[in-house]
Amino acid sequence: MEPNIPFSNDIQTVFTHDPPGQWLSKLPAGCIRLNSGYPAPSLVPSQELKAAAARLLDEEGDKPLQYIGSPRTPALAAYIQTRMAERDMAVPGDELLVTSGACQAIDLAARVLLDKEAVVAIESPTYMEALEIFQNYTEQFVTVPVDEYGMRTDMLEQQLAERRRDGRPLPRILYTIPTFQNPTGTTLSAERRQHILALAAEYDFLVVEDDAYGELAFGDTPATLKAMDSANRVFYIGSLSKTVAPGMRIGWVAAPESAITVMSWLKKDLGHPFGQALMAAYLETAAFGDRVRRLSDAYHSKRDAMLAALAAHLPESASWYVPEGGYFVWVNIPGIDAAKLLPEAMEAGVAFVPGQYFFLDRESGAGCLRLSFSYESEEQIAEGIRILGAAVTKALGK
Amino acid sequence: MEPNIPFSNDIQTVFTHDPPGQWLSKLPAGCIRLNSGYPAPSLVPSQELKAAAARLLDEEGDKPLQYIGSPRTPALAAYIQTRMAERDMAVPGDELLVTSGACQAIDLAARVLLDKEAVVAIESPTYMEALEIFQNYTEQFVTVPVDEYGMRTDMLEQQLAERRRDGRPLPRILYTIPTFQNPTGTTLSAERRQHILALAAEYDFLVVEDDAYGELAFGDTPATLKAMDSANRVFYIGSLSKTVAPGMRIGWVAAPESAITVMSWLKKDLGHPFGQALMAAYLETAAFGDRVRRLSDAYHSKRDAMLAALAAHLPESASWYVPEGGYFVWVNIPGIDAAKLLPEAMEAGVAFVPGQYFFLDRESGAGCLRLSFSYESEEQIAEGIRILGAAVTKALGK
Repeated sequence: MEPNIPFSNDIQTVFTHDPPGQWLSKLPAGCIRLNSGYPAPSLVPSQELKAAAARLLDEEGDKPLQYIGSPRTPALAAYIQTRMAERDMAVPGDELLVTSGACQAIDLAARVLLDKEAVVAIESPTYMEALEIFQNYTEQFVTVPVDEYGMRTDMLEQQLAERRRDGRPLPRILYTIPTFQNPTGTTLSAERRQHILALAAEYDFLVVEDDAYGELAFGDTPATLKAMDSANRVFYIGSLSKTVAPGMRIGWVAAPESAITVMSWLKKDLGHPFGQALMAAYLETAAFGDRVRRLSDAYHSKRDAMLAALAAHLPESASWYVPEGGYFVWVNIPGIDAAKLLPEAMEAGVAFVPGQYFFLDRESGAGCLRLSFSYESEEQIAEGIRILGAAVTKALGK
Repeated sequence: MEPNIPFSNDIQTVFTHDPPGQWLSKLPAGCIRLNSGYPAPSLVPSQELKAAAARLLDEEGDKPLQYIGSPRTPALAAYIQTRMAERDMAVPGDELLVTSGACQAIDLAARVLLDKEAVVAIESPTYMEALEIFQNYTEQFVTVPVDEYGMRTDMLEQQLAERRRDGRPLPRILYTIPTFQNPTGTTLSAERRQHILALAAEYDFLVVEDDAYGELAFGDTPATLKAMDSANRVFYIGSLSKTVAPGMRIGWVAAPESAITVMSWLKKDLGHPFGQALMAAYLETAAFGDRVRRLSDAYHSKRDAMLAALAAHLPESASWYVPEGGYFVWVNIPGIDAAKLLPEAMEAGVAFVPGQYFFLDRESGAGCLRLSFSYESEEQIAEGIRILGAAVTKALGK
């Protein structure tokens, strides 16, 4: 029996959009997972985490298993501060909150800043989970196209100017993944980064910078928006999901102190002492800088394997951006409907994420696919692209 | 520099009440912790969890460290279902959500059900974290006194009848800790439990039942509200914090399917795969039923140590409820101001939680103290109460 549930007026927008996708859990066995934004199994440090857990529990006993008390919980925050400082983002402790992954950080930022009156500016396409999070709070969006140099900031400026001229509400926040963007793999140019910060000052909005992939660079990358931000307008979101393990759920947000304070009041999972202390114990012996370089080399090689296979197996008409880091290649194949192609491709043995999932209207991007080179081996990547190429040829021939 | 932060209109109530207390982190070294709602260090299974982590990571490799994929994540939910069914609460999988502790479950229930128009009925006194959570959503409360048999449901009914008669809004939810209540240690009688469910039907409200301490019974206890609820009006909140370890952050909520669905959409920490899989691995060899009996016996003995010390060291005028389970003794000492007594007691070497913290107005309960017998050894409990008795005598003599 289901009683009448008196749902809150403050969450009514959650009922106006589709729930998050569940396709990952429906993959047939043996299907090559070019859909997954997962780290490669061989690069997940499971044995090192086993050793760290043993050391932590032998040294500390019950401390990391109580609500508070492990010295390694503050040590994790301090480690994140150090790593940020090495990347020219020095933040004091009261401007940092460790979260359960980047996703919770995005949600907390949205929760403290958004309501149904708020306008959010986003890249189009953008990270589908972030899109869904923002849609839980508002239905008002400004969408900004992405090209090979990242967000088209000229088109952002044009929309802002039009809104100001017409007296329409301006965005409260701009959400961006400037480096190795999800899903396009593109990196925002240094000039456009400056442009965003100038627009933020001129139009008085905050910037939520999602840097989940920023450590995994195959070459040089521009400074983060946070590092360039002298006005403290940037909420910087980081994550150890891509560099250590997503299942540990360690991310963070660095933001002005008043926002961090309110986010910490609203975050009611009580901080996950064991997970945080375990991550700190792992980092003590991880040689993280070396690890990141090793991971970047491995993903660089996987990217090359994917690009070679794409060139070999996709039709001439297909094109893609060459990512300089991160996990993803964004492929455009004129004439296909990616959402319709997916079931056929999965039956043939390969999965991807259809472009439509990354757009607000769920209709744009039909000719696009997000392919991940992170999870599968180079051999499986090549085989997956071969299967995909055959499925595409078949679809285009229909 | 701090820019202007455009805080959401939906969280304005967070600014109208005091932030959560931080006194736990300010305890002087060596202070006897009769304040802490922590399990006894010797009863926290740190070595068993170390073994479970090793087994999990050896058997599963990267699986529990990815976003999803460990077979032990669904196994944890299934275990919780089994344990609930053993306590006459059979719930299907789509009516259960594993959370990061009971606190996150309370927050999710509040988030899907409350807004500033909502009225919440609470016990007075009640769990201070729950109070703070509800105050993040609304300022409208119905407070119901507690006596030695738990919530005074006659006084709840009286207030409901008055509100209906006067055309004032009725509560959307009633939050209760019916068994070994925090902070009073009292247990709601079976008759009052029936009364609550009858009132819920008559006045159309939902019941949020917090059963964090329910497993730790020194003798028989009444059936849970969830077990008695044929109308599916009860959101049942459980926890492994008190029976395994709070730092693992494993709790859950069982509720009507539509509410569980929306809670899962709003819960953006992505489920903590490693923590959940580790708990499942631990439970495989924990003999949980035996463990709960062993814990209950240990806390029973600690309670007796505390009651004996109270009888020996507190003035004649002091009184307390005898808890039949859980972690807490609620002591009333006419003539003292507990909040003022605390710094003096801490300086003398013992900490407690002043009664005022558990009341909405933060003024009632001045003569009351919440004493926890869970954390310290029996010797330390006796010593702590001796110190407390001396501090009370001194305060009353002034």
